[in-house]
Amino acid sequence: MTETNEQTILSRLFALIEGRKGKDPETSYTAQLLAGGVGKIAEKLGEEAIETVLAAVTGEREALIHESADLLYHLLVLLAARGIRPEDVFAELEKREGRSGIEEKRARKR
Amino acid sequence: MTETNEQTILSRLFALIEGRKGKDPETSYTAQLLAGGVGKIAEKLGEEAIETVLAAVTGEREALIHESADLLYHLLVLLAARGIRPEDVFAELEKREGRSGIEEKRARKR
Amino acid sequence: MTETNEQTILSRLFALIEGRKGKDPETSYTAQLLAGGVGKIAEKLGEEAIETVLAAVTGEREALIHESADLLYHLLVLLAARGIRPEDVFAELEKREGRSGIEEKRARKR
Amino acid sequence: MTETNEQTILSRLFALIEGRKGKDPETSYTAQLLAGGVGKIAEKLGEEAIETVLAAVTGEREALIHESADLLYHLLVLLAARGIRPEDVFAELEKREGRSGIEEKRARKR
Repeated sequence: MTETNEQTILSRLFALIEGRKGKDPETSYTAQLLAGGVGKIAEKLGEEAIETVLAAVTGEREALIHESADLLYHLLVLLAARGIRPEDVFAELEKREGRSGIEEKRARKR
Repeated sequence: MTETNEQTILSRLFALIEGRKGKDPETSYTAQLLAGGVGKIAEKLGEEAIETVLAAVTGEREALIHESADLLYHLLVLLAARGIRPEDVFAELEKREGRSGIEEKRARKR
Repeated sequence: MTETNEQTILSRLFALIEGRKGKDPETSYTAQLLAGGVGKIAEKLGEEAIETVLAAVTGEREALIHESADLLYHLLVLLAARGIRPEDVFAELEKREGRSGIEEKRARKR
Repeated sequence: MTETNEQTILSRLFALIEGRKGKDPETSYTAQLLAGGVGKIAEKLGEEAIETVLAAVTGEREALIHESADLLYHLLVLLAARGIRPEDVFAELEKREGRSGIEEKRARKR
């Protein structure tokens, strides 16, 4: 897998999710999630995060890869439901890229 | 921002995180997280997920973008701590790409 | 510790929390939490739940006792913030008490 | 409901959970949870916490009562699975009772 392929998967997946908006919930898991609304999708994201946390501390390497994929997928569905593109999140990460070291730490503190 | 730029941010960020391994925890937030170990990083990921969930249901659009960026960043740190590359997770997502509709739903059911 | 003592602790703690409503946030952690509002308290409850989950799977017995106490305390603060008494939650648990076995399972299914 | 009744519900519920240990998972939801082991119960506790968080910020009063009851119940199952009695957690809460105000805050800080 080349770097380009690795990266386009998130864009392709997001386009696929967008294409499921308004579709019959019976036809796909994604359409079903989107039909449930933001609250239900957020709840599912939370559940996937719990599973990721557990896989990280108790699971095999493969389990963490699997749960991380689930987490990313549900994050994309949540963003789609709120009308946010993954690129908006990437832009936020890029904005932070300049900050580093102690400054990064301070910038992140709340 | 071109597609290439959007996507390389995750790879660049991951490389930056990898470069902080073993560095003095005082010098950066990332080095501090990595020094805390997998359990502490997983806890932090869980906290960021809660914040993402709350931002999704009660927050402004900008708050959800911000929390999603935090969640992605901490997921990358967790993967780094467990010796997993983001590409391993992307490969898992690609593997699922063929499945869709009802079949996708069944495949995801536990 | 007699049974009565064990049990009155939740009522005493809730009364103490109620007494902190409207107090200067600088004077106690509870007053500070209450001043933050329901969203902030819910976020804290979520964080304590993550810590409880982690203590359950990786921690010592004492760590789980400690985190469970934190979780209960923050649940009481959340209830107080929403105007719910612990007795309301106990009544809900009592209502379910009659159901058991397979029926209990069905009743809980969503 | 008298104070005694309110409080004995947690003890009664815990005794009921203890009585389900080793029972056929098909016969009750509790037996099924216990058979799943600490990891699975912890995961379920995490999910119930997410639902409590969401009910707190977006739900009706009744929804929060319902989710809080679910959270308490799953916490009792988790404690049972780890051989901890609710009284052990109450004792921890009592130990903290003396501390208050600024001191309480400091004692809780990590």
